[in-house]
Amino acid sequence: MHFTSERRLDDGVLEREFTLGEIPGFLWTPASASAPVPLILLGPPPLGLRKVYPRLVARARHAAADGFATATIELPGSGDRPRWAAAEQALADLRRAMEAGEPVTDEIIDALILPLVAKAVPEWRVTLDALLALPEIGGPVGYSGGVISIGVRLAMVEPRIVAAGLFAGSFVPRAMFEEARQVTIPLHVLLQWDDEGNDRQAALDLFDAFGSKEKTLHANMGGHTGVPQFAGDAAAHFFARHLK
Amino acid sequence: MHFTSERRLDDGVLEREFTLGEIPGFLWTPASASAPVPLILLGPPPLGLRKVYPRLVARARHAAADGFATATIELPGSGDRPRWAAAEQALADLRRAMEAGEPVTDEIIDALILPLVAKAVPEWRVTLDALLALPEIGGPVGYSGGVISIGVRLAMVEPRIVAAGLFAGSFVPRAMFEEARQVTIPLHVLLQWDDEGNDRQAALDLFDAFGSKEKTLHANMGGHTGVPQFAGDAAAHFFARHLK
Repeated sequence: MHFTSERRLDDGVLEREFTLGEIPGFLWTPASASAPVPLILLGPPPLGLRKVYPRLVARARHAAADGFATATIELPGSGDRPRWAAAEQALADLRRAMEAGEPVTDEIIDALILPLVAKAVPEWRVTLDALLALPEIGGPVGYSGGVISIGVRLAMVEPRIVAAGLFAGSFVPRAMFEEARQVTIPLHVLLQWDDEGNDRQAALDLFDAFGSKEKTLHANMGGHTGVPQFAGDAAAHFFARHLK
Repeated sequence: MHFTSERRLDDGVLEREFTLGEIPGFLWTPASASAPVPLILLGPPPLGLRKVYPRLVARARHAAADGFATATIELPGSGDRPRWAAAEQALADLRRAMEAGEPVTDEIIDALILPLVAKAVPEWRVTLDALLALPEIGGPVGYSGGVISIGVRLAMVEPRIVAAGLFAGSFVPRAMFEEARQVTIPLHVLLQWDDEGNDRQAALDLFDAFGSKEKTLHANMGGHTGVPQFAGDAAAHFFARHLK
């Protein structure tokens, strides 16, 4: 992990950009901390970190105020990272189906999501190794948001993640429902009730499938980007309860 | 409104019992308040106030700590209030259907709930008149919990109620879905995902039906009486946001 830049935000939060091999990322740590702090991994949407930076840094500041470090990495195929042909094809198929008003088939969803999950999850785990080796980062570790299938897989395979906040706002391959049954950590699932790009019933089914004894679904009005402020506050309460 | 008893709880909350005509009730007010306080009406389950007193007083203490007065009244046909033959019959029909593992028909639900709503709602409104006439009670007013159909009707017809927390945990007549569409105040709806006596799909349909622009569904694991502590805290945040 190489830090490539460092600056203080106006509220004192330390923002550092890093690269881990070829993967760029951000690390935010609270203004002052006398001991190693818990960590929340911020899963980004697959739009490129530069594009979603304002949303990420807002979540990072909120978490820092609660005493948490946060970190994120660029997803495979997002931002300046190289595309791969199959993903480009799946994305083109998805766009064509949506523009034609046709159903998005399981084949398209699988082709779009499963390789992304397979590539991204090991990268998050290596990033977690590097972050936890920093003296200022302790634990426990939470995972928040982003592509929900990546969150499901991470929650299933990564024992250092003790709580996850998931955003039921993207296409979910059928295979992920089986993985969801094997998830046992506390979950906080956000659902935008009128999300234009989301299958509400699939989101409810996925919530039902999770094996966790503590799981909470927060459904709010509005579309994909209309998550109300108080929903963010509720997610923060969830992490405060489990990471402190 | 006649106060029949008065005592201080160990945290300083003032608990008063009252009667309003033939209706018994409780009023709880914060230990100290320099100005008239907002009010939350606590809808009880139809089991009798004496039986559910521990749960009610816990909610009252929590609300008092946030600066709210709370009040509740005995439902028609509950506690020591007179039963009526049709309600007894509907309850017997319900028990017979459930014990036989048969579906609870719309006829049974209508017979059980609609007369209860028709009797209870005017009583709550008269109680609200009396409470708001007390110098220590100001506003705004919220409604929380209890038989959800009573909450729906009150939210629709009583303009002094500005926010409602509803518990999707009881049988809902079909007619209430139409009333739900006419509700426009902010709503916080609690759903116990594995509630043995509750139709989950009906609860989701009712949530969908509400006309409110701000409505939030919080679904948690566990049965009817297994509402987790943090779900109560989240409801408290909802009322703090809307009644302060």
